[in-house]
Amino acid sequence: MSDATSTSGDIMAADHADQRERVIELLTKAYWMEIETVMSYIANSINPDGVRAMEIRESLEKDIQEELGHAQQFAARIKELYGVVPGSMDFAAEQSFLQPPEEQVDVVHVIKGVIEAESGAIEHYSRIIEETDAIDPVTQDMVIAILHDEQGHKRLFEGFIREYEAEGLA
Amino acid sequence: MSDATSTSGDIMAADHADQRERVIELLTKAYWMEIETVMSYIANSINPDGVRAMEIRESLEKDIQEELGHAQQFAARIKELYGVVPGSMDFAAEQSFLQPPEEQVDVVHVIKGVIEAESGAIEHYSRIIEETDAIDPVTQDMVIAILHDEQGHKRLFEGFIREYEAEGLA
Amino acid sequence: MSDATSTSGDIMAADHADQRERVIELLTKAYWMEIETVMSYIANSINPDGVRAMEIRESLEKDIQEELGHAQQFAARIKELYGVVPGSMDFAAEQSFLQPPEEQVDVVHVIKGVIEAESGAIEHYSRIIEETDAIDPVTQDMVIAILHDEQGHKRLFEGFIREYEAEGLA
Amino acid sequence: MSDATSTSGDIMAADHADQRERVIELLTKAYWMEIETVMSYIANSINPDGVRAMEIRESLEKDIQEELGHAQQFAARIKELYGVVPGSMDFAAEQSFLQPPEEQVDVVHVIKGVIEAESGAIEHYSRIIEETDAIDPVTQDMVIAILHDEQGHKRLFEGFIREYEAEGLA
Amino acid sequence: MSDATSTSGDIMAADHADQRERVIELLTKAYWMEIETVMSYIANSINPDGVRAMEIRESLEKDIQEELGHAQQFAARIKELYGVVPGSMDFAAEQSFLQPPEEQVDVVHVIKGVIEAESGAIEHYSRIIEETDAIDPVTQDMVIAILHDEQGHKRLFEGFIREYEAEGLA
Amino acid sequence: MSDATSTSGDIMAADHADQRERVIELLTKAYWMEIETVMSYIANSINPDGVRAMEIRESLEKDIQEELGHAQQFAARIKELYGVVPGSMDFAAEQSFLQPPEEQVDVVHVIKGVIEAESGAIEHYSRIIEETDAIDPVTQDMVIAILHDEQGHKRLFEGFIREYEAEGLA
Amino acid sequence: MSDATSTSGDIMAADHADQRERVIELLTKAYWMEIETVMSYIANSINPDGVRAMEIRESLEKDIQEELGHAQQFAARIKELYGVVPGSMDFAAEQSFLQPPEEQVDVVHVIKGVIEAESGAIEHYSRIIEETDAIDPVTQDMVIAILHDEQGHKRLFEGFIREYEAEGLA
Amino acid sequence: MSDATSTSGDIMAADHADQRERVIELLTKAYWMEIETVMSYIANSINPDGVRAMEIRESLEKDIQEELGHAQQFAARIKELYGVVPGSMDFAAEQSFLQPPEEQVDVVHVIKGVIEAESGAIEHYSRIIEETDAIDPVTQDMVIAILHDEQGHKRLFEGFIREYEAEGLA
Amino acid sequence: MSDATSTSGDIMAADHADQRERVIELLTKAYWMEIETVMSYIANSINPDGVRAMEIRESLEKDIQEELGHAQQFAARIKELYGVVPGSMDFAAEQSFLQPPEEQVDVVHVIKGVIEAESGAIEHYSRIIEETDAIDPVTQDMVIAILHDEQGHKRLFEGFIREYEAEGLA
Amino acid sequence: MSDATSTSGDIMAADHADQRERVIELLTKAYWMEIETVMSYIANSINPDGVRAMEIRESLEKDIQEELGHAQQFAARIKELYGVVPGSMDFAAEQSFLQPPEEQVDVVHVIKGVIEAESGAIEHYSRIIEETDAIDPVTQDMVIAILHDEQGHKRLFEGFIREYEAEGLA
Amino acid sequence: MSDATSTSGDIMAADHADQRERVIELLTKAYWMEIETVMSYIANSINPDGVRAMEIRESLEKDIQEELGHAQQFAARIKELYGVVPGSMDFAAEQSFLQPPEEQVDVVHVIKGVIEAESGAIEHYSRIIEETDAIDPVTQDMVIAILHDEQGHKRLFEGFIREYEAEGLA
Amino acid sequence: MSDATSTSGDIMAADHADQRERVIELLTKAYWMEIETVMSYIANSINPDGVRAMEIRESLEKDIQEELGHAQQFAARIKELYGVVPGSMDFAAEQSFLQPPEEQVDVVHVIKGVIEAESGAIEHYSRIIEETDAIDPVTQDMVIAILHDEQGHKRLFEGFIREYEAEGLA
Repeated sequence: MSDATSTSGDIMAADHADQRERVIELLTKAYWMEIETVMSYIANSINPDGVRAMEIRESLEKDIQEELGHAQQFAARIKELYGVVPGSMDFAAEQSFLQPPEEQVDVVHVIKGVIEAESGAIEHYSRIIEETDAIDPVTQDMVIAILHDEQGHKRLFEGFIREYEAEGLA
Repeated sequence: MSDATSTSGDIMAADHADQRERVIELLTKAYWMEIETVMSYIANSINPDGVRAMEIRESLEKDIQEELGHAQQFAARIKELYGVVPGSMDFAAEQSFLQPPEEQVDVVHVIKGVIEAESGAIEHYSRIIEETDAIDPVTQDMVIAILHDEQGHKRLFEGFIREYEAEGLA
Repeated sequence: MSDATSTSGDIMAADHADQRERVIELLTKAYWMEIETVMSYIANSINPDGVRAMEIRESLEKDIQEELGHAQQFAARIKELYGVVPGSMDFAAEQSFLQPPEEQVDVVHVIKGVIEAESGAIEHYSRIIEETDAIDPVTQDMVIAILHDEQGHKRLFEGFIREYEAEGLA
Repeated sequence: MSDATSTSGDIMAADHADQRERVIELLTKAYWMEIETVMSYIANSINPDGVRAMEIRESLEKDIQEELGHAQQFAARIKELYGVVPGSMDFAAEQSFLQPPEEQVDVVHVIKGVIEAESGAIEHYSRIIEETDAIDPVTQDMVIAILHDEQGHKRLFEGFIREYEAEGLA
Repeated sequence: MSDATSTSGDIMAADHADQRERVIELLTKAYWMEIETVMSYIANSINPDGVRAMEIRESLEKDIQEELGHAQQFAARIKELYGVVPGSMDFAAEQSFLQPPEEQVDVVHVIKGVIEAESGAIEHYSRIIEETDAIDPVTQDMVIAILHDEQGHKRLFEGFIREYEAEGLA
Repeated sequence: MSDATSTSGDIMAADHADQRERVIELLTKAYWMEIETVMSYIANSINPDGVRAMEIRESLEKDIQEELGHAQQFAARIKELYGVVPGSMDFAAEQSFLQPPEEQVDVVHVIKGVIEAESGAIEHYSRIIEETDAIDPVTQDMVIAILHDEQGHKRLFEGFIREYEAEGLA
Repeated sequence: MSDATSTSGDIMAADHADQRERVIELLTKAYWMEIETVMSYIANSINPDGVRAMEIRESLEKDIQEELGHAQQFAARIKELYGVVPGSMDFAAEQSFLQPPEEQVDVVHVIKGVIEAESGAIEHYSRIIEETDAIDPVTQDMVIAILHDEQGHKRLFEGFIREYEAEGLA
Repeated sequence: MSDATSTSGDIMAADHADQRERVIELLTKAYWMEIETVMSYIANSINPDGVRAMEIRESLEKDIQEELGHAQQFAARIKELYGVVPGSMDFAAEQSFLQPPEEQVDVVHVIKGVIEAESGAIEHYSRIIEETDAIDPVTQDMVIAILHDEQGHKRLFEGFIREYEAEGLA
Repeated sequence: MSDATSTSGDIMAADHADQRERVIELLTKAYWMEIETVMSYIANSINPDGVRAMEIRESLEKDIQEELGHAQQFAARIKELYGVVPGSMDFAAEQSFLQPPEEQVDVVHVIKGVIEAESGAIEHYSRIIEETDAIDPVTQDMVIAILHDEQGHKRLFEGFIREYEAEGLA
Repeated sequence: MSDATSTSGDIMAADHADQRERVIELLTKAYWMEIETVMSYIANSINPDGVRAMEIRESLEKDIQEELGHAQQFAARIKELYGVVPGSMDFAAEQSFLQPPEEQVDVVHVIKGVIEAESGAIEHYSRIIEETDAIDPVTQDMVIAILHDEQGHKRLFEGFIREYEAEGLA
Repeated sequence: MSDATSTSGDIMAADHADQRERVIELLTKAYWMEIETVMSYIANSINPDGVRAMEIRESLEKDIQEELGHAQQFAARIKELYGVVPGSMDFAAEQSFLQPPEEQVDVVHVIKGVIEAESGAIEHYSRIIEETDAIDPVTQDMVIAILHDEQGHKRLFEGFIREYEAEGLA
Repeated sequence: MSDATSTSGDIMAADHADQRERVIELLTKAYWMEIETVMSYIANSINPDGVRAMEIRESLEKDIQEELGHAQQFAARIKELYGVVPGSMDFAAEQSFLQPPEEQVDVVHVIKGVIEAESGAIEHYSRIIEETDAIDPVTQDMVIAILHDEQGHKRLFEGFIREYEAEGLA
């Protein structure tokens, strides 16, 4: 009889197809967010000019690998839940706030863009954590770890903007 | 007098702005090709099912880092030539042939897609090599090395397709 | 007063002996599952013949260390909860589906055996996650991580079997 | 509308300031516990005399780095939640049981002190796990991992004391 | 003509099937001895309590990998000689002397168990060396190396027991 | 006769107990200075906000390990000279100048605090070097090496403050 | 007197020149076998096309270094026994069965060629082991280790061919 | 006949002595440029004061090894072309723009000096590339790679100066 | 239209078959040169006697891996250009000057042999560079790098012979 | 004139031959002390039986390399001062207290032997430090570092003996 | 019954005490040979002067670790066979031929000494191999590996001497 | 009061400006000596021809990094003492004895030049050690370590020259 009704937390079980669909949907959105972040961070780890910009460039350059890793984790999880990782045709850019500024010395523009991007990610990942609770603990645990990365990153850039605010530049 | 007219191969010199514009244009296209390839290879290193697919998946997974590296090289070169690396809003997908197939066991679809993508890259990079000759030896040298990677990759997948043809499956 | 009644999540507290007994029981079963898997994977990482079998053999060989590590984690946790890791006399084989096939080129037999073993593990580990919820977060967290490994492994072998099904061999 | 009320698990959201205050308070206490443990373990990894003491000294010396790492994790989390890591003036020693004994061959004194210190940490960290449930999953997940370390450590030293009890020395 | 009668030392030759059968039989027994030792050493590297027990636990923990390696060497050699590595259903525990003792501080029980297990292995491996002489030099050479490990291990634990005897505890 | 009166530089000899007492006293003070510095640097490697603060934070974060190493060297030397490393109850904070500032963007506060702390250490370590001359060359040599680290560190932060002075901010 | 008649196993002794001649002869043949194998494996690690061929190509590519190492061991041993390593003019190809096939997808041709090459090596090395017994234990021991490599390799490729036989392709 | 007149690209051939002389002359100048840059970068990686100066100091410190490596490459190439690496007596300083400024917080002075030094190098290396074309492809290829380093470095410091210009400081 | 006639530098394009044939021919000769060099260097890294010979032996031993790597690069390039790497039956020795000398202390014989071998390689590789110019930049770039290795090696051994000439021994 | 009378601290100067003789004498004695310690520690890292002995064995085994390193430092310094490192015929054993005891479980014998050996070394090295003061700072500095090692080692074994004293066994 | 009479190759069995005694005697002599060689090689890796001497010095310096390792292997084997590793008082120097020569540029003296030492070792080790045959395969196998090292070393130095003979210097 | 008069060994104290000036002067000379040595060693690690020259070339090549490191240490210490590292315009070559010889096989010229350079360094560094005694122990300690390197190097090259003297070539 224990075979008839699967354990509630076994998301891969046959009778949990609907829940899987919902989780895949959430993961797919997260996947595209990370892919776009990779693009945005490549550009912003190279474009900005200036000594102060170096700190931001180096920080973003290190994050490229991290964010790509997140994307690959999301993609692998989609596959594990019997979904299909979407192709490049499905990509639609959303990070209007992380496009190159007019002037490459405008570092404030980049910092604010990063904060906005991270805020969006944090909100979405918090949602996944809520929705997977008691349904898919593996996805939940994986997303909590990724959320930690994003929170730390957002907090760092909030510190950056504070300095510019103190100087009256932001 | 030697200061008045710069050395012909010094692409960074002030009086070579037009040539730089052209090279940046070529590099920007190359940059987007590599970025899209990263997306396509992530999906195709995860989606396919089957034992034989493993060889393809592992090959593509290793290439993700390589192609990302190419993208970062192109981006850095754009910056060195006083250009601006474009933001995610400028991205437009072109690799219709590398979208996920109907059936995830359809490995032939993936192999053919990779060959088409590599053929496009090879053609474009050969053009850059021609156009930068005696104008920008640094870009030329960098692109020759990348071209080598792509030729090797294309040849490998042509070998794969040959096996399927021999079996009457492609 | 806070000393009188221990925090609910402190599984090591004296008044949680019953809960500990139950968790140790679950962990002991998990321990033996992993030990048997080690045996099965050694045999199946060596016995099968053929080019296609190589992919399976290499995959299983890598997993031997991973599964042994799981066994050691389960054993260490049993000890931490004041239990005793059982001796070899308590071992009873259960993976009838992972015994060597008649023919060593019969890879499908191995693949199906792995899927069945992983399915059993996933079901049992999902149960542990449920039963330890709010009682022993440390065990729960440890098992979620192990569950992730097993889900990924099962999904991979399901992909393998799909190829043989497509070829009418499974 | 989803912007108006933030996701319940997004502890960094503006309307969760009270919850953050409480979590910071708990983390600050944890931070000081780890800092004092670093001091106590330095002294006790050096002071004890004797062959048997070597095992304890080496065990504690390895833990210095681990406990320092915990302290840094707690401190970083305080910052991420918009708190301020306190300065050395706020430190108040509490581990009276881990001060150097009269005789440096009195290893039992050290073992008992470690057990008491770990018990205090386990109790406090279990409380954090409870209080952050569904409120701050990132802090919760981080503390569960630290709790695991402390449980393992306590259990090891309980085993040590048992030997001395069996010999009638404790 | 050189094909008609094979070199006496070429155990893989077709006309040496009987000798191979015998060697496989001996290797299979050796394989199971190592597998059971892995189980016994996992349990005994975790169960014992006490400072002195640490030395034994650490020694056994290091040996787990070594013994697993031996098992894999035996298994690979069985395959090379056209045999089949047996499945978990064939396992039958024999190390009654290495089951967990009543009291986890009873280290003497563990030490004696290890000596008995190693003695059995040494006797069996010495037999293999004798029987493979001039018949299968590769197996012989491999087993001599493994025998060296076991002799060293036995001698170490004999030294341990001697201390307890000197103290009148064994 | 050479046995009757020990070599003047042999600080461990029985008839040098008074000199040892004095050296232990100096080392104990040095030990606590380093321990407090560890605390201060953890806090100040995490609290400050801003791009420019990053340089200071990274510099201090690297120094945490270095200063902890100094503390452990001082503690080990105390033990070698037959002293006892003090417990946490003996700690008394003195670095009032390194407590968190009102505003976390106030980097000047941190820089000045570091200079003051290093100045105190340099003065005390110079005293140890003087007092141990021809009495305890081993302690002297060890402290010279540590002094070098502190001088370099002080000089670096003096350079930092100079920039702020040039900008009229300090 | 012990100088008059050398120890029987001291192959380097002056009165063992004849035995050395014979061993050098055997080693020289072995040397050329390994050199030719290096050539054959380079070609066959690059020429074959197809997904299944990848497993064979990778296996052979790894073996190139191993076989080169064998050749260098044989050459060094020739020198130690007062012989001279022959020059390239003495090389005569013998592995007609390992030349490139008509069709590069003909993997069965390659597998059979490898088995034939390994069989020849095994036979020759078994002969060396026999002839050096009690005469030159160092050469014997070295060749046993090399023989083990070759036996394992042959067995692997026999497994490959079995799959093709099962599919009616070989 | 092909021996009579050497291949045009074989710079080492006897009848290319004149061309070699010219290349050696160009390489010798390049060699001294790199040597002086090593001196200038050592001084400027240590002298400047201030937080912002750290970025420049670290950048230059890393480049010391790179520039020394360039010098060694130029020297080795001189030797390969039958020239002699000159001794220290031949050195004549030319980088008047990279001498220590009056004030060590004057970072703009350093940045401008680096740009001027790199511009000179780029011009000279572009000339070498032109003059070696079709004459000495090895030197040409080596210099292209070095030129790439210098272009990247110049571009970076141009970005630095831009920030100071934006702030009205340069 | 740009599709109709391929880019001149795209050697893999269908209408460049003749050029590919010629390049493959040149690469095949280069491949055999490197293979023979591997053989010659193995023998000459082992045969020579004497202290001075050590420098030559060590130099050649290091080059074995380098030359094998060159051979593998040539072979891979042949494959990429749709050629077939030849089998061992096609090998014909040409380095008569690198056969073992009468006396193993005759180091001059070896040095002269190496110089002759390298001269031949340099001439052939210079030809490949000329012939691939503007036709196959990838092959050209690869061969330039290999040519650099050979030039450096030749120059080193020319320095060796000069010493013997100065001593009247060559 | 500064050439006429050399700097007092330049021990290698021609007019310091007498001082060099004395230093070489001291170093030669130190050299033999370390060589004998190597022998004693090899024997005592292998002979003792028992669990408690393991701590001593491991400690001594690690020190073998350290003491050998000291011997090599002393030998190199003798050479630098124009002395000759003595041959094995000059060796005369002095560590009667470190010979193997009657019973291999007699660990106290070993511990006391180590303390006596270290005490002798400390006394001699303290003498060297005194005698080289202001005469040969390089030797002095080198010996201070070695002295530190020996002091730490002695103190550790004094701690060991204290435990046995507390138990009434020493 | 198989328990009554032990396997002939089980040297550790109780009824093989006589054979063990003989093997221990042989191993003890071997142990002292290696210890003396360590001393001789330290001296001779430091004393000789001259460019050609460098090759010998470096060769001997590398061998110090190897020979020390041999000594430790012999010592460990003595212990395994229930023997006792002798103390330093038992050492008696025998390598009169490896004492420092009159003139430190007399390299021929050193080379001949090494050859004599290695010849002695080879003779003794060949004897051990003979005497342990079928009695103690583990010791035999261990000594064969060590013998290989010594043969290679002797052969190398014979090559060195040949050069000096050719020059009429030896 | 202790603040009024600084510790005598605190060279960074305000009232030690004169002493600092003198130390900086000495360090600046040392800095330029090392810089010139870097140049001389680059040239002399590349120019010399011949087998024997290899030993010298390799020795000098390794020293380039060491000497550069010394230069950087001197430069950093100048900065720490509130001095300014001089620019390249201040460089004046002094090592006339290390310029390239007429003939590149003239190794004796190079050896003598190195000895002269090292002698000069040793004399100057001995002076610094004397002058900094009890004034600046950190500089003193740093220079003692550097002096050790130079003494060892000088002694090595004196050994080289001795060989040539024995052969009547120097």
